[in-house]
Amino acid sequence: MTYELFYWPGIQGRAEFVRLALEEAGARYLDVAVLPEAQGGGVSAILRVLEARGVRRPPFAPPILRAGRQLIAQTPNILLFLGGPLKLAPRDDRGRLWTHQLELTILDFYLEIFNTHHPLGDGYAYEEQRAAARRRTRDFLAVRLPKFLGYFERVLELNDSRGPWMIGARPSYPDLSMAQVIAGLKYAFPSAGGRALRRRPRLRALHDAVFDRPRISRYVASGRRLDFNNDDLFRHYPELDR
Amino acid sequence: MTYELFYWPGIQGRAEFVRLALEEAGARYLDVAVLPEAQGGGVSAILRVLEARGVRRPPFAPPILRAGRQLIAQTPNILLFLGGPLKLAPRDDRGRLWTHQLELTILDFYLEIFNTHHPLGDGYAYEEQRAAARRRTRDFLAVRLPKFLGYFERVLELNDSRGPWMIGARPSYPDLSMAQVIAGLKYAFPSAGGRALRRRPRLRALHDAVFDRPRISRYVASGRRLDFNNDDLFRHYPELDR
Repeated sequence: MTYELFYWPGIQGRAEFVRLALEEAGARYLDVAVLPEAQGGGVSAILRVLEARGVRRPPFAPPILRAGRQLIAQTPNILLFLGGPLKLAPRDDRGRLWTHQLELTILDFYLEIFNTHHPLGDGYAYEEQRAAARRRTRDFLAVRLPKFLGYFERVLELNDSRGPWMIGARPSYPDLSMAQVIAGLKYAFPSAGGRALRRRPRLRALHDAVFDRPRISRYVASGRRLDFNNDDLFRHYPELDR
Repeated sequence: MTYELFYWPGIQGRAEFVRLALEEAGARYLDVAVLPEAQGGGVSAILRVLEARGVRRPPFAPPILRAGRQLIAQTPNILLFLGGPLKLAPRDDRGRLWTHQLELTILDFYLEIFNTHHPLGDGYAYEEQRAAARRRTRDFLAVRLPKFLGYFERVLELNDSRGPWMIGARPSYPDLSMAQVIAGLKYAFPSAGGRALRRRPRLRALHDAVFDRPRISRYVASGRRLDFNNDDLFRHYPELDR
């Protein structure tokens, strides 16, 4: 089975959480909108899926995964679906629920990072909401960031299996997502984020372990992984990084 | 089995999505923090769960559901867990995934409603972020609200089973959550929300069908369902409702 992934080209965005899972598992997938328009890719490919007639269960927004005839949307839901076949989640019900709970908490975390630069939503450009962004970021760096990092550091500490992972002795999809959030945080807030991570050795080790995985390393080296950039979920504005 | 629910007393908050599911199913549950402190309730009960030693899989924040020895957090995850036993989700894997996808989209929707009055996060009082709230709300009412309502109206339209529900011919947990969001929207934005719902007959019918369910009616009449109020997820500020 070749999965098809649909996501806005030019940014990592939420799709990157899905890509990291597919890459780590060595799954075959087509990143449809990355193809040129002439080959059926580009934004048109996404609009075709969003506006298709005859789809009984339509997605609200990308990322969207096509698996055979099934269309699945919402990042954590896609990962819930992929966790089993990609062997990136425990097999027992309790373990799967705990894995999903962590993923939803990671979603909360990266939404709050997005909100630092777009507190008024993406209906306004960053330049139209600078003052609001500064205030939101102040609270994020002082209160929310340490709370999230402290929580995930504790989750790592409470896992008594060997290795750097959050669940048992093997990597699961929230490990990949968490590493991505740490990478995004370091891009967005090299100074404040670096400081906040100093006392979080387990999170730093998790990040390094994920990006040292052979398939993830090859993915990063392939050039297929886009660089972080300021149209994306994680953005670097020096005036916010204090 | 008696479930135990832990959530901040005095507001409906995110726990109300869980309560509506438990009530509709006639499940036995204890709303722990609603009890007086002297009987083991209040905020202390929540803090005891959040700070308990010996919990290997700690929740980040309420709502938290205790089911036997299992602690489950994150609203959509709790509903994913309850959907089967409460018979509020389809039994097949695809149906369960679609149900969860809808719930996650409803979560996006109510987070955007929350963000209208707290765009800078809850680190600041509403009074400290009035101007930002006005701008965020303007974009929400013009762009985001019609987009969400249009999507869910279409989901209802595409369900060719009889009845007012989103999935098949029986109510499932996203129906209950959606009705709650519509109720919250009408409280927060009686004028702009009412206008937006005028052309959404299926969503209005869904709302009415849910609040007409015998067990939900009894729950509302019991006084146990708190009123909407301005410390809650949905808040009414007349200056935002234009």
